[in-house]
Amino acid sequence: MRQDIVAVCRAIAAFTEEPGYTTRTFLSPPMHDVHALLRERMLRAGMSVSVDAAGNLRGVYGGRTARRLLIGSHLDTVPRAGAFDGILGVVMGVALVESLRGRRLSYGIEVIGFSEEEGVRFGAPFLGSRALVGTLDDELLAKCDGSGCSVREAIEQFGLDAARLGEAVMSSDVIGYLEVHIEQGPVLESLDCPLGVVEAIAGQSRYLLRWEGKANHAGTTPMALRRDALTAASRWVVRVEEVARELEGLVATVGQLEVEPNAGNVIPGLVRASLDVRHAGDAVRETALRRILEEARRIAGQCGITVSWEQRLEQRAVPMDVRLTELLAEAVPGAPRLMSGAGHDAMIVAQRAPVAMLFLRSPGGISHHPDEAVQEEDVEAAYQACRRFLEVLDV
Amino acid sequence: MRQDIVAVCRAIAAFTEEPGYTTRTFLSPPMHDVHALLRERMLRAGMSVSVDAAGNLRGVYGGRTARRLLIGSHLDTVPRAGAFDGILGVVMGVALVESLRGRRLSYGIEVIGFSEEEGVRFGAPFLGSRALVGTLDDELLAKCDGSGCSVREAIEQFGLDAARLGEAVMSSDVIGYLEVHIEQGPVLESLDCPLGVVEAIAGQSRYLLRWEGKANHAGTTPMALRRDALTAASRWVVRVEEVARELEGLVATVGQLEVEPNAGNVIPGLVRASLDVRHAGDAVRETALRRILEEARRIAGQCGITVSWEQRLEQRAVPMDVRLTELLAEAVPGAPRLMSGAGHDAMIVAQRAPVAMLFLRSPGGISHHPDEAVQEEDVEAAYQACRRFLEVLDV
Repeated sequence: MRQDIVAVCRAIAAFTEEPGYTTRTFLSPPMHDVHALLRERMLRAGMSVSVDAAGNLRGVYGGRTARRLLIGSHLDTVPRAGAFDGILGVVMGVALVESLRGRRLSYGIEVIGFSEEEGVRFGAPFLGSRALVGTLDDELLAKCDGSGCSVREAIEQFGLDAARLGEAVMSSDVIGYLEVHIEQGPVLESLDCPLGVVEAIAGQSRYLLRWEGKANHAGTTPMALRRDALTAASRWVVRVEEVARELEGLVATVGQLEVEPNAGNVIPGLVRASLDVRHAGDAVRETALRRILEEARRIAGQCGITVSWEQRLEQRAVPMDVRLTELLAEAVPGAPRLMSGAGHDAMIVAQRAPVAMLFLRSPGGISHHPDEAVQEEDVEAAYQACRRFLEVLDV
Repeated sequence: MRQDIVAVCRAIAAFTEEPGYTTRTFLSPPMHDVHALLRERMLRAGMSVSVDAAGNLRGVYGGRTARRLLIGSHLDTVPRAGAFDGILGVVMGVALVESLRGRRLSYGIEVIGFSEEEGVRFGAPFLGSRALVGTLDDELLAKCDGSGCSVREAIEQFGLDAARLGEAVMSSDVIGYLEVHIEQGPVLESLDCPLGVVEAIAGQSRYLLRWEGKANHAGTTPMALRRDALTAASRWVVRVEEVARELEGLVATVGQLEVEPNAGNVIPGLVRASLDVRHAGDAVRETALRRILEEARRIAGQCGITVSWEQRLEQRAVPMDVRLTELLAEAVPGAPRLMSGAGHDAMIVAQRAPVAMLFLRSPGGISHHPDEAVQEEDVEAAYQACRRFLEVLDV
């Protein structure tokens, strides 16, 4: 079984817009091939298959009642992606239905391959799961890609009817949503664990800071008379890391930093720096953010320069459903609980249904890269855990 | 007198390649206008005037002996320059000869307006003063500007004969070189002094450092598992400043810093940073450089990343001539002694003759900018000081 899941993911990776790499954006032509491959397997497993108006592939396997468990993830990729981000969760869903060999549970299963999660083509992520919860609105539909094609036009060009988006919204009989996903980080590997149960998707604060000193000649300006924007910003970068290390589970990153005029013999007059702060708990994140911005103010004052900032993103944490997550944890005894630092479709689905997420170890923590991988024994462990989860739910 | 010197500098600033700004590179067409204006004044002051094969304007005022004092600076500018950098020293030389009203000293005076000091057009500075000391060699003559024109061709296009460069070399009767220049820094202003006597032109070490960590997802990589090239480089930038502040007279600058991949949600995997260290004493500069590079190695080790560097420039300090500088200091009682953090023609002339430099206060420390200025009373003070210097030399 496990070889099969990995093999199908690798086969799907060959459907690409860019030969030699895996690049598959929202409703790009190779998405038709992905749908064809998965539809074939879904049908063989006894599912009824459709593509909704947002381009989500949906396979329904009936149960003894109308209640329905959703299992899924996304089928689109970042440019030059790996073979497992998103796809693995969809292929896993199909494999779980196959494992039932026609046996009916007390609930049905709907496997969903979301059309869009990465936000690459239109700069707006989660187009697929937003359709599922009914928030793919006119504003989003009007967004255009680099070639001037709107989301609505992309839907039509794929052969779908945007007027029927209302039918894509999930039914009220949904009892939960399970997403299996690679961790895309190094935590499970560092713990030597194949699987982890996600407790929450981290909240995020993103800021842009502007440090303004005074550019001056590097040779003729004594140290005591400088207003160096980079030495001030550097003191702050060091403090950002220290604050993050003091708060359990917090991550804080200065990923972008630009210097002006950026010449070796000129004291930097201006520095622009990004700040990205994430934590599973909103209160901790807000505390950290406050301390980091206070530090910026304090350091700027000490250095005789000015600092200002603007908020770019403020996103609250999304906790997984407590009951569903406990049931999932029962099916993976001993698995560590962790936070997801990245966003996932489960974040969006959580607006309408109880959600749970299972992470697989990412070798080297590598993702969004052709070297992205999974270990076959980890896929097997995830598959067995999910089978137990289906049984636990079957009451 | 002082109004006149400032007025002539401002008049010369109107001769430009770029209307609305002062931009005048090596032997560009407006340099003809500069020569015409200064030649006229030199002739009226009783000087014989020529332009040597490197494009240096040279006015000779005879003395009672063949011995000769050189007074000069450069006539070219950086792009969008001010009106005083370089030019002031040449106009001052002419004004000093004018002040003699035909009186002969025991030595002659040669005022030189160097054709090139800034290195803008050919990326090689000091083309004018190198011709004076005989080091404007074939390699330099073959250098090309952005349009593919060589130094040699630029000389011919200006109407000069590069074959006669040998005649540009200074005579053996030169008793010294005096350069009056704006400070281009904030030291004299901070000391509330109009003039300063230069003791040395600082030695410089320039390096490029490469900090290599590992790029990773800012949301999914816990603090303890990161190898962030920017937090490491930032620790070092802070230490560079601290080391510089500990050593009297040292300046050390990280002026250029570039991050890869430079995205807000990606931990920096690579940082390239420049280092510029200057001091009047080579031993102090070498000590500082060693400590700064040791700090880089130590910090990289602590952060689990690698750092490497390459030397870009290593230039020893150039002390001014002790005797000539003492005579100059006698003429400016109470003037502070200082180091020049920037290079000047005097650095090159020092290879063949005793040199001395007098700095004028730069309001706001501003230079290489249209706002570059001088105070008229400071120009007057410099003029009077130089007149006294000429008298002291007249033995």
